[in-house]
Amino acid sequence: MINNIFCNNDTICAISTPPGTGGIAVARISGPQAIAVCDRIWHGRPLAEAVSHTAHLGSVDDAEGNNLDEAVATVFRAPKSFTGEDVIELSVHGSVYIQRELINALCEAGARLAERGEFTRRAFATGRFDLARAEAVADVIAADSKASHRLAMSQMRGNFSAELQYLHDGLLELVSLLELELDFSEEDVEFASRQRLLELAQKIKATVSRLARSFRTGDAIKHGVSVAIVGETNAGKSTLLNRLLRDEKAIVSDVHGTTRDIIEDTADIDGVCFRFIDTAGLRETDDSIESQGIERALKRMRSARIVLWVIDATRPENVAATSADVIGNISDDQTLVAVINKTDAAGAGEVRSRLAGLCCDKTVEIAASKGNGIEALEQLLVEISGAADISATDVIVTNARHHRALVDAEQSITRAIDGINTSLSGDFIAQDLRETLHHLSTITGTITTDTILQNIFQNFCIGK
Amino acid sequence: MINNIFCNNDTICAISTPPGTGGIAVARISGPQAIAVCDRIWHGRPLAEAVSHTAHLGSVDDAEGNNLDEAVATVFRAPKSFTGEDVIELSVHGSVYIQRELINALCEAGARLAERGEFTRRAFATGRFDLARAEAVADVIAADSKASHRLAMSQMRGNFSAELQYLHDGLLELVSLLELELDFSEEDVEFASRQRLLELAQKIKATVSRLARSFRTGDAIKHGVSVAIVGETNAGKSTLLNRLLRDEKAIVSDVHGTTRDIIEDTADIDGVCFRFIDTAGLRETDDSIESQGIERALKRMRSARIVLWVIDATRPENVAATSADVIGNISDDQTLVAVINKTDAAGAGEVRSRLAGLCCDKTVEIAASKGNGIEALEQLLVEISGAADISATDVIVTNARHHRALVDAEQSITRAIDGINTSLSGDFIAQDLRETLHHLSTITGTITTDTILQNIFQNFCIGK
Repeated sequence: MINNIFCNNDTICAISTPPGTGGIAVARISGPQAIAVCDRIWHGRPLAEAVSHTAHLGSVDDAEGNNLDEAVATVFRAPKSFTGEDVIELSVHGSVYIQRELINALCEAGARLAERGEFTRRAFATGRFDLARAEAVADVIAADSKASHRLAMSQMRGNFSAELQYLHDGLLELVSLLELELDFSEEDVEFASRQRLLELAQKIKATVSRLARSFRTGDAIKHGVSVAIVGETNAGKSTLLNRLLRDEKAIVSDVHGTTRDIIEDTADIDGVCFRFIDTAGLRETDDSIESQGIERALKRMRSARIVLWVIDATRPENVAATSADVIGNISDDQTLVAVINKTDAAGAGEVRSRLAGLCCDKTVEIAASKGNGIEALEQLLVEISGAADISATDVIVTNARHHRALVDAEQSITRAIDGINTSLSGDFIAQDLRETLHHLSTITGTITTDTILQNIFQNFCIGK
Repeated sequence: MINNIFCNNDTICAISTPPGTGGIAVARISGPQAIAVCDRIWHGRPLAEAVSHTAHLGSVDDAEGNNLDEAVATVFRAPKSFTGEDVIELSVHGSVYIQRELINALCEAGARLAERGEFTRRAFATGRFDLARAEAVADVIAADSKASHRLAMSQMRGNFSAELQYLHDGLLELVSLLELELDFSEEDVEFASRQRLLELAQKIKATVSRLARSFRTGDAIKHGVSVAIVGETNAGKSTLLNRLLRDEKAIVSDVHGTTRDIIEDTADIDGVCFRFIDTAGLRETDDSIESQGIERALKRMRSARIVLWVIDATRPENVAATSADVIGNISDDQTLVAVINKTDAAGAGEVRSRLAGLCCDKTVEIAASKGNGIEALEQLLVEISGAADISATDVIVTNARHHRALVDAEQSITRAIDGINTSLSGDFIAQDLRETLHHLSTITGTITTDTILQNIFQNFCIGK
């Protein structure tokens, strides 16, 4: 633990509620002087005399000593608080003016404005949670769908940390077995434990690999599962998009306003957030501008998790014209769904027979203009996303930093296994195991640096 | 008191913190079932067993019974709460998803979503405050300058209510004196109390008139003091505007974003909010479009509280060309300030002599391009606004509804005084006094209707 390099002894304050005007706003103050600082601007029963977890009505002054507002102060004494330090929460009327003046007054009284995520960072520093759980706090706050919320909550509750602890214990056991072997190595005894070493290492590798692989699902759920809608012109791609967005459009746009020029639009289907990407129609053309549009469509298609290939049932003969573009640009990581549209106007049989052998993962029939088959398609999307298979206790990695550490850990444990298999000296194997431990420890923060912590917490909001 | 017509027995809930994402969000639940409703979604020590003003760590479920978030519940038992009813405040992580699901869960558990201002309305219904103080809660939340905040706080603390109580007591005394006279009227005795009646009534009228008059200052401070900048073309109006807005521009625009197409821009000077209105340059013209622009400028000038008439010191001969437009459109309610600009390039003497007798209220000299004299002009604006003269205990009326009631009360007390002076029958005088009482009672809400209350509280935010 090198946590104390960033554990300051000063007292911090910030408005912890969302920015703007509301009925009430809450300022949080944490640190050894939290109670003394608040008492300097407080009128009411002295907070220094208050027992932990009690709320008190009083009033607060501004920095000039004038009465600023009525307030309710709730006292949380160390270590039974969010940060593990003394914490006061001051609830005041939610005007922008009062919020600003209250923070000014607190700073004047001896606190300083908290940096982003500094309250959570202090909770980590005082050992209230490990780093993986601290990072989950930001994910919980950012989660905007049921699935992403559930993943973040699972991590915040410590399910991932428990898996990491299990891996940590297993690695320590491995190292001690190796040391046992090393102790007796001069006697040149062949140990039965080599087999046990191998089994243990493979078990650890399996868990590390499973966690690393889960990132693909976790990342998609956290940021929205990307779905590219491709197909020939006039196949009904935009009609399908509108069907899929339904009335979700307005609601979700509120939240994703800032990214609208990058993603087309998002919709929440059964608690899973999907990012639908409409693309230009695919067709052979000599027009160079249109060709560029098609190239862009293919590029976006290649980066999507799921590709919906919309095919017009009334024009089965056109399947061949787009199949090369679609099939040729699909990778194994992606799921390709053939969506046969306009089945109210023509049977899907002809298209189905032309699709035979084109390795689509799934085929669905819809009539987008009438809404037929949309629900079945939505259920299919949820199924492909993998979100439905996740139970409340499953550990799914959603954080790119954790994923990198897991991939690194996977490589070093693989080297250790190779070493065991090729009867490498225990010293080398132990080195690989220590590396594996190191990578996993960066996730929980038992090994960390100030730079890593700064990078992590700068993505938090002020006041958390 | 007819308050009980809107005092519902159900339990209400809402997010009371500003909308959006933040570190934490607070849901407030109030009503007879507040504690029981929360306990239905709560995991932790039962809140039913908690004593008032204590905070408890636990977790809350969503409407489907799945764990939604960790939470801190603070219990306020009736009557010692904001509403006077049992109140629970649930502090959760501030994601939009959690806030929405928490309200869903509370509604599923037996609460209903609060209407705008319904918590404050209940505080009024349970007698926690009178209507004037309840209305001030919304003003406190909306206040965005030191001066408007101070006025709203004064009203919320009950200074206005105390004055109204004093008027109420005085009117009751008047009525009892009149009744004494009526009791003895058959004996045709000339009472010394007629003189006393008159003195009392005049004292009441003086207070009512002072309060009614204070609205002009109060309204200007609450909504920003309007300042029109007028003058001939190229006198330096826009340069002056930019000087006055300084770096305040960006800050204040955050708050007033929605009204920017109506007001030019606002600036906070010494805690007073000013709305500066730039206008087209005044000059004689045959161009009909330019004439329309000048007519609009004059119209805006007529609606401003303060008019800054910018005059170019290097062109004193032009004073005459604009003076008719300016002087001819100023009313007694307005303050006209002659601002002699470009005094770095020419002396102000020539302009001053031409201004003599043109009844400007004040004259200042500036050089807007260099910033000379701007501070003095700003101090003059603050002085004219009247905000500096207001002490913390002064009662200034800021609410249009209160102003109308005071004007009505002023008229009826004036009729009562006329009646006393003309020895009218006590019955008629008593009728006017009762009307005066009625008008004042609508302010505090001792006499009110559901429609009035609905109009008042619909301007509140949800959750307050």
